[in-house]
Amino acid sequence: MFRIAYVNGRYLRHAEASVHIEDRGYQFADGVYEVCGVSGGRLMDETLHLERLRRSLGELRIAWPVALPALRHIFREVVGRNRVRNGLVYCQITRGVAPRDHPFPAMPVKPALVVTAKRIDEARLAAAVETGVAVITMPDLRWARRDIKSVALLPNILAKQAARESGAYEAWLVDGEGFVTEGASTNAWIVDTQGRLVTRPAGPDILSGVTRRMLLEAAKHIGVEIVERPFTPDEAKSAREAFISASSSIAIPVIGIDGAPIGNAAPGALTLRLRAAYREICELS
Amino acid sequence: MFRIAYVNGRYLRHAEASVHIEDRGYQFADGVYEVCGVSGGRLMDETLHLERLRRSLGELRIAWPVALPALRHIFREVVGRNRVRNGLVYCQITRGVAPRDHPFPAMPVKPALVVTAKRIDEARLAAAVETGVAVITMPDLRWARRDIKSVALLPNILAKQAARESGAYEAWLVDGEGFVTEGASTNAWIVDTQGRLVTRPAGPDILSGVTRRMLLEAAKHIGVEIVERPFTPDEAKSAREAFISASSSIAIPVIGIDGAPIGNAAPGALTLRLRAAYREICELS
Repeated sequence: MFRIAYVNGRYLRHAEASVHIEDRGYQFADGVYEVCGVSGGRLMDETLHLERLRRSLGELRIAWPVALPALRHIFREVVGRNRVRNGLVYCQITRGVAPRDHPFPAMPVKPALVVTAKRIDEARLAAAVETGVAVITMPDLRWARRDIKSVALLPNILAKQAARESGAYEAWLVDGEGFVTEGASTNAWIVDTQGRLVTRPAGPDILSGVTRRMLLEAAKHIGVEIVERPFTPDEAKSAREAFISASSSIAIPVIGIDGAPIGNAAPGALTLRLRAAYREICELS
Repeated sequence: MFRIAYVNGRYLRHAEASVHIEDRGYQFADGVYEVCGVSGGRLMDETLHLERLRRSLGELRIAWPVALPALRHIFREVVGRNRVRNGLVYCQITRGVAPRDHPFPAMPVKPALVVTAKRIDEARLAAAVETGVAVITMPDLRWARRDIKSVALLPNILAKQAARESGAYEAWLVDGEGFVTEGASTNAWIVDTQGRLVTRPAGPDILSGVTRRMLLEAAKHIGVEIVERPFTPDEAKSAREAFISASSSIAIPVIGIDGAPIGNAAPGALTLRLRAAYREICELS
């Protein structure tokens, strides 16, 4: 079986799926993306992802490349053609192809759309959830509009690479005032010494994670007190629990920050309860 | 005649020149670029551009996709095949194609190389130099490593688009302390009331422009005093002259900032002298 990718109206063999060299995504990072989890063949939180995609496109004034029902259909086609039961759908939309020039094309061009799907390594994810992961902290060097889910991810990949080279799973990025913004590709959470769930409020400093939002719902559902405020790495080090969230992994316990153990250096009980509660909410929806 | 682009070892018709959807340049802005002027069929300041390219690649730990003599040869081939006498060579190098994952590929992949060339609209450039252009100022929202000439240009294009919508040619970006960093795709300069040439020193806040460097040489050559320091929009508004520099245009006079006229709202004499001196130095080199 060949992997199949959707590219601008066609389903292509993944190996042959390409975009023009003057696609503004390639030359200017002029595009946005979404990653949507697939569980049991079903798209998770699809509507929330599409809402966020609408917002990202709107902020950059990029039009929808296809109508929303067509996009939903393409997601299903790509999941089906790649026989993904548990995995991810990746969707990238750029402003389209135009002769290289910084301003938006004077004559509007058709936005470019790429959709792929892949299975995730469930064993690896399960192991990360079971044992917990380490994070390091680094200065947040990114631009000021992290609420737009753009493909301008160079600072994120540099941070993630630094984490991997330190033997950590993720890098928590720290703003100029000394507060954690989020991870390179995840949102950051702690459970404080009073058992309250703490995470930075949505705003231009962080991506408003779909899974972040659903975990807040899950916390309300199981009666956990939530405090949306920034926290420092020092506070995290003395927290009862810490974890990271993303669509691809829901919640992964953090057991160490910059080498300091969190709690008893084992996955936190509330983290695992929230993870389970999220899955329940998803199955009910 | 078809336009020709070089892409990963092949000379292709421009219309058919493409890169894989999982090129990390497309998914992560994980790449760098250079734009080198072509004058009378000759590459301008080629060695300085290649030095900067080496530095950008080094900062991101991307290997050369081809050896340097081969790259120089490709530049000439692309210029020649496109019959460009006065124009630009564009060169983009990304980390290469790999399954989407934030960290650098665990197994190194071959970096991707794209080279294109095009003619510039000489009449349009001459008109801009003759009449001067307007700039607006905007907050600088970019990431902290502007010294790396990366393709993560989303904030730059948004600023340039805002400039165009205001009827201006360029946006000057202003840091948190109220000082101009540079333009969205140009370096920013003023001539102060004492006739000194003022521009922000090289560092992580700005791109160390090749043309910026050559204009500083030109200024020394004609005996102009240089002060490398940041300046504010207010200072620029009361400056004797202002201008922007880039490889594609050398120096273009700025005659208005946020609607306020600079000097007598006409191209500055020193700006034009520097432009001429730069061209002389280039021809001698």
